[in-house]
Amino acid sequence: MKRSLGAKTWVYPTPVFVVGTYDQRGRPNAMTASWGGICCSQPPCVAVSLRKATYSHGNIVARKAFTISLPAARQVGQADYFGTASGREVDKFAATRLTPVRSELVDAPYVGEFPLALECRLLHTFELGLHTQFVGEILDVKADEEVLRPDGHPDVEKLQPLIYAPGVQEYFRIGPVIDQG
Amino acid sequence: MKRSLGAKTWVYPTPVFVVGTYDQRGRPNAMTASWGGICCSQPPCVAVSLRKATYSHGNIVARKAFTISLPAARQVGQADYFGTASGREVDKFAATRLTPVRSELVDAPYVGEFPLALECRLLHTFELGLHTQFVGEILDVKADEEVLRPDGHPDVEKLQPLIYAPGVQEYFRIGPVIDQG
Repeated sequence: MKRSLGAKTWVYPTPVFVVGTYDQRGRPNAMTASWGGICCSQPPCVAVSLRKATYSHGNIVARKAFTISLPAARQVGQADYFGTASGREVDKFAATRLTPVRSELVDAPYVGEFPLALECRLLHTFELGLHTQFVGEILDVKADEEVLRPDGHPDVEKLQPLIYAPGVQEYFRIGPVIDQG
Repeated sequence: MKRSLGAKTWVYPTPVFVVGTYDQRGRPNAMTASWGGICCSQPPCVAVSLRKATYSHGNIVARKAFTISLPAARQVGQADYFGTASGREVDKFAATRLTPVRSELVDAPYVGEFPLALECRLLHTFELGLHTQFVGEILDVKADEEVLRPDGHPDVEKLQPLIYAPGVQEYFRIGPVIDQG
């Protein structure tokens, strides 16, 4: 017999997506979002949901592009900061001393120091309520050599992706591998 | 300098969603999907993407409802089985000896032995390509008492949610908490 907890957005794990955009004046911004995930294999697409009130929301609508950088567990402080400050008021790259790297494929920057980044062209915009869901076609994935296996796939234990738990608002490391799919 | 890996669906972590449905004859089915995540806070919504070829896809279209059960790490074998067999050919609940529990809120069953379940009413159906994205309004979250903290929130270390890593096709446990959001 399970206990009813109500209509909550409680699923585990959720990712930590740092969404990179340019604003109208070409200034780089990044914000952290955990409402998202892969949504299609062909074309390869990722979804991320942002509130309309965010600065990044307007940037994506205007530029029709965004990136998603995945911070490592050791970068939790910077990742959390990207989710609390607003690019309307502060230059978050300057504040964190992180590097906005201009994508050569889409009109958006990614975070140079984070180990993995997706470059996305906006394909769909779905208004769902408080959040707008942006679906981006993944044009390329880029990763640091140090987090790759010899076969060119990510080594997840080296990548050490950051994990977020809604409701309890806690960040976790990934644990050991337990099985092959 | 990052290495280009191509247009891949490689993000970390992805969840392990076991999607529960009834077919046309009222038989329960469940399938595992990792393309999904929370997509809106108000109304509380979760997205999950399924290929049109899956049995569950037709069930959701017909019943306009689904559940998402989250398996614990110890249940990885059953969770993986739900992602490989098809409900067209086999009764996966019988094969795994797991219990389909009829939701009182939506026309779909959840997996009784998995520690947490979301009951969802279909709100939107988005055709994205190979995958269809189903957006469900979360009407309730139900969880086993043993995975809850005294304040009624999930205790993530007791929940031990299963984590999937695309590309390398590995299942992981969650690791230790490292920070508060």
